[in-house]
Amino acid sequence: MRIVSVDPFYLRMPVVTDAADGTQDSFLVRIRTDNGLEGWGESDASPIVSLSVYCCPMSHGNIVSIRESLLGETLGGVEDIHRLHAKTLRNGLDIQHIHHAYSASDLALWDLLGKHAGQPVYKLLDGASATSHPKLPYASVLFGDTPELTRQRATDLRHQGFKAAKFGWGPMGKFGRENDVALVRAAREGLGDDATVLVDAGVVWGHDWQTALQRAADFAPFRPGWLEEPLLPDAIEDYRRLCTRKPAVPIAAGEGSGRYRDAEDLLLNGGVKFIQIDVGRIGGITPAHRVRKLAEEHGVTYVNHTFKSHLSLAASIHVFAAVEGFEILEYVMGGSSLSRELTTEMLKRGADGRVRTPERPGLGVDVSPAAFKKYLCPVRIEAGGKALFESAPP
Amino acid sequence: MRIVSVDPFYLRMPVVTDAADGTQDSFLVRIRTDNGLEGWGESDASPIVSLSVYCCPMSHGNIVSIRESLLGETLGGVEDIHRLHAKTLRNGLDIQHIHHAYSASDLALWDLLGKHAGQPVYKLLDGASATSHPKLPYASVLFGDTPELTRQRATDLRHQGFKAAKFGWGPMGKFGRENDVALVRAAREGLGDDATVLVDAGVVWGHDWQTALQRAADFAPFRPGWLEEPLLPDAIEDYRRLCTRKPAVPIAAGEGSGRYRDAEDLLLNGGVKFIQIDVGRIGGITPAHRVRKLAEEHGVTYVNHTFKSHLSLAASIHVFAAVEGFEILEYVMGGSSLSRELTTEMLKRGADGRVRTPERPGLGVDVSPAAFKKYLCPVRIEAGGKALFESAPP
Repeated sequence: MRIVSVDPFYLRMPVVTDAADGTQDSFLVRIRTDNGLEGWGESDASPIVSLSVYCCPMSHGNIVSIRESLLGETLGGVEDIHRLHAKTLRNGLDIQHIHHAYSASDLALWDLLGKHAGQPVYKLLDGASATSHPKLPYASVLFGDTPELTRQRATDLRHQGFKAAKFGWGPMGKFGRENDVALVRAAREGLGDDATVLVDAGVVWGHDWQTALQRAADFAPFRPGWLEEPLLPDAIEDYRRLCTRKPAVPIAAGEGSGRYRDAEDLLLNGGVKFIQIDVGRIGGITPAHRVRKLAEEHGVTYVNHTFKSHLSLAASIHVFAAVEGFEILEYVMGGSSLSRELTTEMLKRGADGRVRTPERPGLGVDVSPAAFKKYLCPVRIEAGGKALFESAPP
Repeated sequence: MRIVSVDPFYLRMPVVTDAADGTQDSFLVRIRTDNGLEGWGESDASPIVSLSVYCCPMSHGNIVSIRESLLGETLGGVEDIHRLHAKTLRNGLDIQHIHHAYSASDLALWDLLGKHAGQPVYKLLDGASATSHPKLPYASVLFGDTPELTRQRATDLRHQGFKAAKFGWGPMGKFGRENDVALVRAAREGLGDDATVLVDAGVVWGHDWQTALQRAADFAPFRPGWLEEPLLPDAIEDYRRLCTRKPAVPIAAGEGSGRYRDAEDLLLNGGVKFIQIDVGRIGGITPAHRVRKLAEEHGVTYVNHTFKSHLSLAASIHVFAAVEGFEILEYVMGGSSLSRELTTEMLKRGADGRVRTPERPGLGVDVSPAAFKKYLCPVRIEAGGKALFESAPP
């Protein structure tokens, strides 16, 4: 089949705040082929910046837009997805944002190919004989502003049947050691003794690996499953200093990986025990699957990072559906109405509390036309008095 | 002083081709302060994508535009430049393109601060007692399409008095080993026995470090000073495989570094002998100077990468002006009329063939109002029917 259209879209909530809540807007790409199929993908990235990578004029042979790289191309098999990934990144060699922007297209191409082949994406990735394994979803929420509010939030999650939950950002790291410890204690007490509690520090200690090491020791009595992103994503030398000292709680990071190398660097040189990959940032399912393979080789646990709609969640789960040992799944609780309404159905937890990979062809979720229209924010870009870009009709 | 305006601009040639010639357009930023000063900077990056990072609506607390981070801020000393760098990158943590886009602003801030303090930028970077050392410019040109055309180009450069030249991209690596060798032989023969010949492979071998190793051996009889970018910028594991085998010609790379970590990774893990930093990509003078310090520590040679106007060249030279041992300077020959006309004067070679750092306050070059108007391409971005961005008047 031949690619006949590549349309990026900006969707957003009427009000956007500075909370660390990635569900307040969305960058979607729809790709259509000449046999009437369409695929959809979502990036976890600035919509306007990502959109501009689809329409930017050529600056020279190493700055060529994604649309130009994809339009008219052939898509017949998995090798085409790899070829188009390499081609687009090579054409956009000098566009730093190419990976963030291309992520949505890569998801859409896998969705298309799955629909074309009548296969769920995980079978395209790991072979027709692969089976999908149910995942243990951890509810991903922000810390309450106080320990008491955190305890309430954790208690609510326990009542909703969650056996695992991650608490992140907000007050963590901002009001001193005692408050940090009180937050983690409250999360443990609210969620219960037998649950998995995960702590996300939201890069709050920057380059200060000593404090991160100290907090890992402070938090250890409350048995968190990991301490996530204590440091900035590119502070790899500091991650190395931290991890070689064997912190009392294992370290998780990786959501900031915008290129395959970023994840490889963090894994090989940073020394993290959990590598968390966002298919909407690293350049799509294609490089995320490579990271998963690398994690398998090195005895590191692969986990998704997902804080967008269930389109992103579905794409994320296909990447590691086939690996039984990688069983933890980030699962956004709450989130904006945009993120909840964007797909016609959501990946629900089963009676056993687990989430299953969609077995339908493609990614296995559909974009809701009504939600799409409701949240669509049309964009127009002009340069030199001529239109470079105009949002396609819904 | 207080920052009162931050204006990004897109300039371009009437015709842009897919040649590996970065001078065909430009991304400029002008920053003005409340005491009537203005500073200018240039990124080596896609103008439209970079511009969008200045006006993108907030997505959440980790996707905040550069304008929002800078407007109204205080600039009084070097510590403010570091603070604003950290602030803007933290606010744009989840914008992959933040470093490319911010580069121009960082240059403009150093320019402003130098004008304010009455100091050339290199003295702000390395102390008032620092002295600048003349640099040996190497003419940076593309290979001719054939060995014969390359020989002519090299001969012309010799007649223009160049004692060093770099030949890159074009046919290199595309027509087999024999042609590759013939190209390097022609460059050496044209430039003369006593000149420095540098070879830029333009990432042509991708991940294939074995071929790069072989070519280094093939080229060694012609004594190139380095073999540049034989592999893709993020193929650090392949650079490591190549460099640990001690190739017959030293390896140079780094222009693709979009973050400080990328350069650090290439230097510490890739094992290159020359680290080539573009101030217009890595996030400006601030991180480039950090890379220079790292190179000094590790016995690696710091070199600029510059393929834009002399605004970028001036910014580049300040970074390592004070280090006598880092004496080679990339110096674009030819380039578009835009790149030649953009500044009111160019950094000329002296009678000794060397290029000197401007000693005027700031970066030491001025943007030509006439050229600016001539090549300006106005941009307008609308989202949801409202203007997000409109180019400021010249």
